[in-house]
Amino acid sequence: MELFNQFKAIQKKQKAYGMVLSIASWDSNTEAPKECFPHRADLLSIISGESFSLAVSEEYQGVIAELLNRMDELDELQKKEVLKAKKSLDKIVKIPKQEYVDYSKLINLSQRVWEEAKENDDYDQFKPYLKKIIEAKKKQIEFRSDREDKYNVLLDDFEEGMTMELYDQFFDAIKKDLVPFVKEVLKKKKDEEDAFITTAYDTKKQKAFVEYLMDVFHYDYNRGRLKESVHPFTWNTHSKDVRFTVRYLENLLFSSIFAGIHELGHALYEQQIDEKFDMTNLNGGASMGIHESQSRFYENMVGRSRMFWEAHYDKLKSIFPEQLNKVSLEQFYRGINKVDESFIRVEADELTYPLHILIRYEIERMIFDEGVDLDELPAIWNAKMKQYLNIEPTKDSDGILQDVHWSAGMFGYFPTYALGSAYAAQIYYTMRDDIDFDALIRENNIKAINVWLEEKIHQFGSSKKPLEILKDVTGEAFDPKYYIRYLKEKYSELY
Amino acid sequence: MELFNQFKAIQKKQKAYGMVLSIASWDSNTEAPKECFPHRADLLSIISGESFSLAVSEEYQGVIAELLNRMDELDELQKKEVLKAKKSLDKIVKIPKQEYVDYSKLINLSQRVWEEAKENDDYDQFKPYLKKIIEAKKKQIEFRSDREDKYNVLLDDFEEGMTMELYDQFFDAIKKDLVPFVKEVLKKKKDEEDAFITTAYDTKKQKAFVEYLMDVFHYDYNRGRLKESVHPFTWNTHSKDVRFTVRYLENLLFSSIFAGIHELGHALYEQQIDEKFDMTNLNGGASMGIHESQSRFYENMVGRSRMFWEAHYDKLKSIFPEQLNKVSLEQFYRGINKVDESFIRVEADELTYPLHILIRYEIERMIFDEGVDLDELPAIWNAKMKQYLNIEPTKDSDGILQDVHWSAGMFGYFPTYALGSAYAAQIYYTMRDDIDFDALIRENNIKAINVWLEEKIHQFGSSKKPLEILKDVTGEAFDPKYYIRYLKEKYSELY
Repeated sequence: MELFNQFKAIQKKQKAYGMVLSIASWDSNTEAPKECFPHRADLLSIISGESFSLAVSEEYQGVIAELLNRMDELDELQKKEVLKAKKSLDKIVKIPKQEYVDYSKLINLSQRVWEEAKENDDYDQFKPYLKKIIEAKKKQIEFRSDREDKYNVLLDDFEEGMTMELYDQFFDAIKKDLVPFVKEVLKKKKDEEDAFITTAYDTKKQKAFVEYLMDVFHYDYNRGRLKESVHPFTWNTHSKDVRFTVRYLENLLFSSIFAGIHELGHALYEQQIDEKFDMTNLNGGASMGIHESQSRFYENMVGRSRMFWEAHYDKLKSIFPEQLNKVSLEQFYRGINKVDESFIRVEADELTYPLHILIRYEIERMIFDEGVDLDELPAIWNAKMKQYLNIEPTKDSDGILQDVHWSAGMFGYFPTYALGSAYAAQIYYTMRDDIDFDALIRENNIKAINVWLEEKIHQFGSSKKPLEILKDVTGEAFDPKYYIRYLKEKYSELY
Repeated sequence: MELFNQFKAIQKKQKAYGMVLSIASWDSNTEAPKECFPHRADLLSIISGESFSLAVSEEYQGVIAELLNRMDELDELQKKEVLKAKKSLDKIVKIPKQEYVDYSKLINLSQRVWEEAKENDDYDQFKPYLKKIIEAKKKQIEFRSDREDKYNVLLDDFEEGMTMELYDQFFDAIKKDLVPFVKEVLKKKKDEEDAFITTAYDTKKQKAFVEYLMDVFHYDYNRGRLKESVHPFTWNTHSKDVRFTVRYLENLLFSSIFAGIHELGHALYEQQIDEKFDMTNLNGGASMGIHESQSRFYENMVGRSRMFWEAHYDKLKSIFPEQLNKVSLEQFYRGINKVDESFIRVEADELTYPLHILIRYEIERMIFDEGVDLDELPAIWNAKMKQYLNIEPTKDSDGILQDVHWSAGMFGYFPTYALGSAYAAQIYYTMRDDIDFDALIRENNIKAINVWLEEKIHQFGSSKKPLEILKDVTGEAFDPKYYIRYLKEKYSELY
């Protein structure tokens, strides 16, 4: 159909803009020199503006409207492409271009300011940018609709179908069942011989081990690259170019290992999406929550399991004999699953992790739904840390300044991290019923795990909705009980 | 003036397109995974097409035409911006957009094919792409004008004002005066104790020395970055983002050192351009020839001088004591200036270097002016090597496949390399009259050299034409006699 070809041509042009903006962003986050950013932000905002103009052009709107009237002439995938395009269009069509360009420029600059503010431990340096970003987000939502529940709009953007009501239920379950359990566990913790956790590990050798892991997980080097950045992330333009970063901290070996496996999880997902979606709007993962379910699955269910280290601990010891030869496998396993009150989300253990997310969710809810004075945010953050984790940060880089997300305007994103962990647990129990998970991990047959996930989840890209995937895979609707069960089983055995 | 603002707005948008395309190209050449290229080439060609449409838009043409009628209302720099824009416009305005898009896609793919062909030593793999590129270049020239002297059009693109006639004179001087001199020198060469030239040097330590050189030459890290690539190059978007690459070959220490200093020369030039040009079309160096004069100046007049190593040889020895402790400064100096018949242009010594260029010039002239069967090119290349340098490559990666330029469509570029060396010599003698060059180098005061070049050349960006710069700096028109004199003086003393 000629009309659909017209649609595809505009989509492809959008993809082209998306790709060059992505490449610039990869460059900005991994190697661009700091003095380039003012000009860069200025010029990138022009390209974002061009991309925006195309995305809301009369022509494109007309094509979509007409396609919606002729859906019966399209096949199933084509229908999905059109519906996704319509949804994307509705998100932005009422935002004035200048607003969009200014916002894109603000975001480009803010991330640099945040980096510096974090380095200088100076919330006040970041605050004016945070303020502008929040105001811009609110304004954008107002352009889109007159809904009062602004935070719901953001939540839905990152996880279709999710609302404050649903997240409240989810986090209530966590508060009810997990928070007391965590307190129990923290009470039980004893002094163990675990100085190896924070001893020095040469960062070059850490990198060698991450590269070893890339082979273990069957990451395809011909379609990606490993690099370093302050904040680990996965980046992709299509299934043929899926890169990720880690950071190496001399006294935090576990950081590069588990952030590495985490990002590998994201990357495997992207690399395993059917290439037929590469040049469509159905490429990329199904949602933030499903994406996070995959990274958490690989990081925690696989990477923090006893079986995984039965297969790989010897290798790690061979790289760090001095630090690990006297550490037994069991000690090491307990070490990587050590539960502790800690400040930094990305370094947090699996059990306390959702509490870090809970804090962010509650603060974002305050910002967008309840109203809060930005001057108070560091204190609010610290008070919540005290409430849930019984510790208080003494500097903002350990508190409110630790994450990149807000500087990039990504409000509504954090809750998907906890949701993803919960999805992961639900998928985990299904997988265990289907294949001999423990044996496969022990035999270093990650390929079999990849194949299972490819078949059930990865291949579909975003041609299925998150809750549809979960239903198809597990046969059930989303239920947080699996997450609670998983954590309680694992940590009752450990503590 | 409102009209000039309109002009600047379009220029800025052009800059934005140029920047994202540049960033993508930097990424392609330094780290993109190989499987990404088909989609990437496809999508980048769309962005190139958008950029092209803008560059030839009716609106822009109209603005330029009207500005040309109102030149008396503009200041000197504004006039130059308009004239440069007009010249750029004339180059492409008659090329159909599809032609341009297809070409951009072809070039994106060809560079990958060339890389593989070089690796596989397989000219036939590259030949069909070479053929298409040449045909496309010829067609482009035909769109621009009905001139029969197609090669002149290409020569002028890279060095305004240069023609086959002028280059023939230049290369004739080289053939007449240099070729016999080189033959003399080659006859005189004796077996020297220079095994240190090709012994193994750890590549990580080589990198450390290149980083040392970056400090020596006062390269600004906050406005750039060093990376590795198959073919060393300098890359910039404006004076705040000027990066370069080298490659490290274990058995060719001099490659990383002198390619490093060479690229540093290009990079210093770009970093020292007045920032007022950053967002104009007068940023970037004045021409390929002037650019190359700067890189060659730093590489040869500075980097291959005895004085330079009086200041830095101890440092190099401290990094490679095993390999160099028994090598005297004089032996080392003779080593870095060893004249030899060699296959690879980028590794060639300073004296035989122009003969490598001569070969490429004559072949390009055949392709575009005389007609030649592409099947014959490898044999022609090898025969010319035999004629001028008395050696014959046995594989095409040592011959016709060695350089990236043709795969990027850059015909007419090579001659500027030899021209740049000749400009450099002319500038060198002027500088010596003005400041105590030898003493400054010996005292490791490269800053003083940078300042001199900044004041006389760098700061102006491309707001002056190449021959205008040469005239302003040296007080004379271009004269190859300085180049011949320089080489004869230096190498008569050595041999």
